[in-house]
Amino acid sequence: KLQLACFERLGAPGWQALADATAAAHEAGLLVIADGKRGDVPHTAAAYGQALLGETPTPWGGVEGLGADAVTANPLLGRDALEPLVDAARSAGAGTFVLVRSSNPGAAELQDAGGTGASLHERLARLTDEVGTDGIGQCGLSDVGAVVPATQPNLLARLRELMPRTIFLLAGVGAQGGRVEDLSQAFLPGPAAALVTASRSIADAGLEQARAGEQADAVRSVTERLREITWALTG
Amino acid sequence: KLQLACFERLGAPGWQALADATAAAHEAGLLVIADGKRGDVPHTAAAYGQALLGETPTPWGGVEGLGADAVTANPLLGRDALEPLVDAARSAGAGTFVLVRSSNPGAAELQDAGGTGASLHERLARLTDEVGTDGIGQCGLSDVGAVVPATQPNLLARLRELMPRTIFLLAGVGAQGGRVEDLSQAFLPGPAAALVTASRSIADAGLEQARAGEQADAVRSVTERLREITWALTG
Repeated sequence: KLQLACFERLGAPGWQALADATAAAHEAGLLVIADGKRGDVPHTAAAYGQALLGETPTPWGGVEGLGADAVTANPLLGRDALEPLVDAARSAGAGTFVLVRSSNPGAAELQDAGGTGASLHERLARLTDEVGTDGIGQCGLSDVGAVVPATQPNLLARLRELMPRTIFLLAGVGAQGGRVEDLSQAFLPGPAAALVTASRSIADAGLEQARAGEQADAVRSVTERLREITWALTG
Repeated sequence: KLQLACFERLGAPGWQALADATAAAHEAGLLVIADGKRGDVPHTAAAYGQALLGETPTPWGGVEGLGADAVTANPLLGRDALEPLVDAARSAGAGTFVLVRSSNPGAAELQDAGGTGASLHERLARLTDEVGTDGIGQCGLSDVGAVVPATQPNLLARLRELMPRTIFLLAGVGAQGGRVEDLSQAFLPGPAAALVTASRSIADAGLEQARAGEQADAVRSVTERLREITWALTG
């Protein structure tokens, strides 16, 4: 999961590094989630689709986009703004992860509010389920996933009920306080139904080691431990 | 108002063109709004602040960000995720425009919903007003503005009531159907209290002309007409 903000802050060389990292991941047989939480009016959402998943036609020929295997999307602007990103991903054989409920402490104030009706995150869960209906594959899972909080395991059972065919991207494990051990509800449909992300605890794992080889070992060790716990959960 | 999606879709050269366009605008004495509707968990929101408004420390020295005079922000993730962007802007003497209610047809389904309580856009308006309290300048306006819909003029009086010190970025004039003539409520505190944006009708104005000089004239003509109508409103 490549966090676009961390590349963008280095300007054009940063964007080139993002393209290089994507290419290197593909060469290593890995899938790339471009985590930019993009969302804008339909016309602009289509441009983000070109940037991350498709290509941009120009008078001098098409310019290829990043070629991500999945993107994260911010759904605040609504269904018509979400669909161009989902369509761009689907055309490219890629996926979309819609932000349904984020993992930060301040998420509750807006995303859990809703008066007597459904909370905002429940509305977003329904929208995600609906937009994903046309993209259900042979395994029974949809190409439209959901970003859900590893920091709020008590919400997962209800979110799974609202989105039975949705792949969950569990955000907030590690530095943000989420524990893989608490996430079994997310994996109910099967081991492929959820992804655990732990960006900061993995990226920072090698910082205390001075030598590159030791840094890589530390990162591998953290990653391996998370993988073992996750596989134990999904049995 | 530079639309980041339109640059990002050209990759690293696009991001360089964004930097060049920003520099050219500054040389011409213009202010630049970087329209990326960014929003993410606090740690990542701070990185977007570095990308667009500040600089990124590295072992080889600081890397300057885009240097925008204002950015647009997506507030779905809540107050703690919005504040790092607002803080980065404030430290740079720049502004933030928070998406309160977008201009696309699908906005109503999520942003106008809210059960018996306040609608989501009313909650976002209150949040925007509150986050802007510490940034009110001598003119009585805040450094935290709001993106509001020129396509829904009937919402403007209520939004102005909820955000009396907020500069409105009126989105959706022209191609999206908004008419400047309908927006007088937005300018009630004074002529500086609202900005009219009409990106597509201006960017597309010269497309029918083949020669560069004629294209520039067509763009100038559309811009001048919008400016005249706006000034007549704010008289």
